[in-house]
Amino acid sequence: MEVLNKKMRKRGRPSMCSEELASTRVKLIQAGVELLTKKGFASAGIEEILSIVQVPKGSFYHYFESKEAFGIVLIKSYFNYFDKRLDTRFSKEDFTPIEQTQDFILIARANMKKYNFSRGCLVGNLGQEMAVLPDSFRKIIIGVFNHWQSQTASCLRRSQETGEIALDLDCDALAAAFWIGWEGAVLRAKLERSADPIDLFVSHYFQSIGISEVNKIFK
Amino acid sequence: MEVLNKKMRKRGRPSMCSEELASTRVKLIQAGVELLTKKGFASAGIEEILSIVQVPKGSFYHYFESKEAFGIVLIKSYFNYFDKRLDTRFSKEDFTPIEQTQDFILIARANMKKYNFSRGCLVGNLGQEMAVLPDSFRKIIIGVFNHWQSQTASCLRRSQETGEIALDLDCDALAAAFWIGWEGAVLRAKLERSADPIDLFVSHYFQSIGISEVNKIFK
Repeated sequence: MEVLNKKMRKRGRPSMCSEELASTRVKLIQAGVELLTKKGFASAGIEEILSIVQVPKGSFYHYFESKEAFGIVLIKSYFNYFDKRLDTRFSKEDFTPIEQTQDFILIARANMKKYNFSRGCLVGNLGQEMAVLPDSFRKIIIGVFNHWQSQTASCLRRSQETGEIALDLDCDALAAAFWIGWEGAVLRAKLERSADPIDLFVSHYFQSIGISEVNKIFK
Repeated sequence: MEVLNKKMRKRGRPSMCSEELASTRVKLIQAGVELLTKKGFASAGIEEILSIVQVPKGSFYHYFESKEAFGIVLIKSYFNYFDKRLDTRFSKEDFTPIEQTQDFILIARANMKKYNFSRGCLVGNLGQEMAVLPDSFRKIIIGVFNHWQSQTASCLRRSQETGEIALDLDCDALAAAFWIGWEGAVLRAKLERSADPIDLFVSHYFQSIGISEVNKIFK
């Protein structure tokens, strides 16, 4: 690869081998996602991300076409990571569907606590900043929420099949209400640097679907 | 006043009369609050606010000690405005307590719609940005939420007295759940540029306290 690169090398700045490029690109994505869960996109400057990964300022366009393109990669990367987490939780066969949801919540809650509630939900952070962000982000973020909602609605329907929740509940509406409230709870948890808002929301949510024993799990 | 100012005038930049100062200060606060409901604090530059009010860049410190002090004035100003709105709604004697809450929601919803969902809740926007904001904002914002929650809890207790909701409901927990969910709903409404997330949250919330006829009001 290096030989090939040498042969193809043009005048001017020496080009990097594609492995090196790919590895730095991954580091930039990791640093970007981390920073965007703490701050929003508008506050998290490209420069700050570049300096974390120790990439010279002028090199950004080696890796991404634009700040907007970088943002889209970050959203998709966070989405894929989160989606895998949801998939893992929602397919744990030794748990009932409601226990799967509670397990997902407990892990997300522990993760927030681990970072002293400084990190929130990247997708929620970006949603809040919509007025100053490229419009291309909007549809992607709406799509992410819709996907999470449909996974949650499926889980609720499975809870109806197992008899954990009542058959007359509207699973789609409840799944949407979950994600609306969850983002509000993550926001308040960040503000108060405490898990209390998450516990409060979760307890109210589960009571609304007839599950009242949730408090025991969160103590 | 002008005479006095002339007499007291020192060398250098001519000073403004205090009326003019006060009036420009009010304009800066109005522009600041408006911009902060659209964008967060980190994105809304002081320069943008100054240019809206046509105040020269160098004059900012005539009006406020620092960007932080300006931010605190903006939060308090928004809080006072919102607090009056809540007070007006919660004291409408021809409405039951639940109707008072629904009336408040309808007006907030209409206000968001009026600005095509580009403006959200200033206090929610700032909460989301906590990682990059001065720590002095944090306690003030938590205080604002606690105040709104206590007004909502009082309203719910009055609903218990009038028999609109069950006596065994925990009004403090429900008031906290309302504000957590409300901020999540405002965030999603901004993202989707639609009132649907607000209606969805409101419908779920009122169902959770045994009020199922809310959909009729929001059509």
